[in-house]
Amino acid sequence: MTMNKGAGGRRKPPTIHDVAREAGVSRGTVSRVLNGGHYVSPTAREAVDAAIRKTGYVVNRHARSLITGRSDSVGFLLTEPQERFFEDPNFNVLLRGCTQALAAHDIPLLLMLAGTEDERRRITRYITAGHVDGVLLVSSHSGDPVASELREAGVPLVACGKPIGIGSKVSYVAADDRDGARDMVRHLLARGRRRIGVVTGPLDTPGGVERLAGYREVLAETATPYDDRLVVSGDYSRASGESGAERLLAQAPDLDAVFVASDLMAQGVLSALRRAGRRVPEDVAVGGFDDSPAATAATPSLTTIRQPWDRISNEMVRVLLAQIGGEDPAAVILPTELVRREST
Amino acid sequence: MTMNKGAGGRRKPPTIHDVAREAGVSRGTVSRVLNGGHYVSPTAREAVDAAIRKTGYVVNRHARSLITGRSDSVGFLLTEPQERFFEDPNFNVLLRGCTQALAAHDIPLLLMLAGTEDERRRITRYITAGHVDGVLLVSSHSGDPVASELREAGVPLVACGKPIGIGSKVSYVAADDRDGARDMVRHLLARGRRRIGVVTGPLDTPGGVERLAGYREVLAETATPYDDRLVVSGDYSRASGESGAERLLAQAPDLDAVFVASDLMAQGVLSALRRAGRRVPEDVAVGGFDDSPAATAATPSLTTIRQPWDRISNEMVRVLLAQIGGEDPAAVILPTELVRREST
Repeated sequence: MTMNKGAGGRRKPPTIHDVAREAGVSRGTVSRVLNGGHYVSPTAREAVDAAIRKTGYVVNRHARSLITGRSDSVGFLLTEPQERFFEDPNFNVLLRGCTQALAAHDIPLLLMLAGTEDERRRITRYITAGHVDGVLLVSSHSGDPVASELREAGVPLVACGKPIGIGSKVSYVAADDRDGARDMVRHLLARGRRRIGVVTGPLDTPGGVERLAGYREVLAETATPYDDRLVVSGDYSRASGESGAERLLAQAPDLDAVFVASDLMAQGVLSALRRAGRRVPEDVAVGGFDDSPAATAATPSLTTIRQPWDRISNEMVRVLLAQIGGEDPAAVILPTELVRREST
Repeated sequence: MTMNKGAGGRRKPPTIHDVAREAGVSRGTVSRVLNGGHYVSPTAREAVDAAIRKTGYVVNRHARSLITGRSDSVGFLLTEPQERFFEDPNFNVLLRGCTQALAAHDIPLLLMLAGTEDERRRITRYITAGHVDGVLLVSSHSGDPVASELREAGVPLVACGKPIGIGSKVSYVAADDRDGARDMVRHLLARGRRRIGVVTGPLDTPGGVERLAGYREVLAETATPYDDRLVVSGDYSRASGESGAERLLAQAPDLDAVFVASDLMAQGVLSALRRAGRRVPEDVAVGGFDDSPAATAATPSLTTIRQPWDRISNEMVRVLLAQIGGEDPAAVILPTELVRREST
């Protein structure tokens, strides 16, 4: 701990206070300039730069972190088992987008995988100790307490997809899941299909709930009968798509289409249909969701709903940096787009 | 900043100094107990625990980090492009092992992907600011300055595989690459093969250099002629195995075996051989390296050299925690094992 020694002591090196006084700005503004200049006016920034040169202030990154409480870094927290992270190409795409968006601000991204309760406890402890300035939260089920815990600890936070049961107090960026599902179901109806099965995502995730809601809405609007036997749930893994399609074929052997809530699950659906001797799209049309690399890798290639991953990651980073800079939470909903390929 | 107020002030809460005085140990020992008790004798630990109860000292994790300079966390730094991380199952296995080994010490793992120079600069800045106590470094090519930079900054560091050109001043844990390669080449010779091609790893990585050295040694010892046309290099990606095998088939169409320096590259070699109409193992025997999930997923399943991933990750964590506790660097070399499957 360094303390002032009074008049008799050595000449003290200039401090952040000296810089603020010289520049005629608050210490907070100096901190923001030192932290990369986010949310500082060009004029204030110039004044601070000039004051730093004049006072001879030397930036000490460690000291700066102590003073500002900033770490100049952002966490990408995935509350899913590690295996899901490697299996699902969506995470790869989203991670790349966020890394790039942060790179433009010279901010490093720390990747945090917390699939178990113990891992979540440890990583929450690390985050709330101030080692990252904010968190990009990916794939939180509604039972997941991480979002509430971080919010209560005052950690700036942006979720990918709407966190269920927390309301608008947590920022999030999401594709319009319901609208995307509506587009796909309308497309399948336009292709002449009437017995449309659905493999939903987990029903404690927004993608699970909203994509099913879109399916039901369009059936209702077009007076297409709703049939419980045409609805099964998966967990976004490929294996769950495969077993989901097997259940659908057993419950409703007359189905002529399947809307699958993720491309990776749709790959599993295609395998199950192939094994059952059903031709795609002739006997059964298959529509996915995401437009991830899994859609083009599938045989046949998947008609799907494109999530605007680049925009989602850019917006997540933008909203998070705004919150770190003091702004209130915000929700951003982005439109999706139907991409037609071979499977419908 | 909290300062002593003198006799007239409020009663101050007990500090870490009070705990140390009461326990009759150094402040450093108290810190180590507070940091999870690594490298503290059971007696000292008990004394500190008793002193904490007696003084009523309340652990303040943030204050603790400031006092001890510890973050209670470890980084897993991969200096490879993000795509390689998702493609190569070795990373998944190693990451899981390290996460589990650290979990036993209640220490969270931060994953850091730094494939570009800018990313390395940003993450090195983050690490040297003290946000992690030490680094598990994976896959550093010899041109990679990260290991030297972290070493010079005094960051405890353990590499996976021997860092080339740094010598024994950096801790590392490695499988015995040369010995594993020798076992595989001897196995192929024992299967009656005499024209054994090799697809090496990158020759600026220890696995690239040492596995090729083992191949050459066994050829020399058995008076098997060495032929330049039988040697090509890959970059550990599947695609590079495929193109490597194509080059081998063009340069040495009479080859009857290929030793491939990773299972993922061997998958690529199998594809190329299949396309060329060569039967495996009848026409060409194929041996891999790693015993990663890629070995059992291959068709035919791969004979390979098992890297002891569980032991490697456990030893990496053990050596790193020892270094964080003040020990000098150490190198650990672990034996490999030949696993016979369908491809030879």
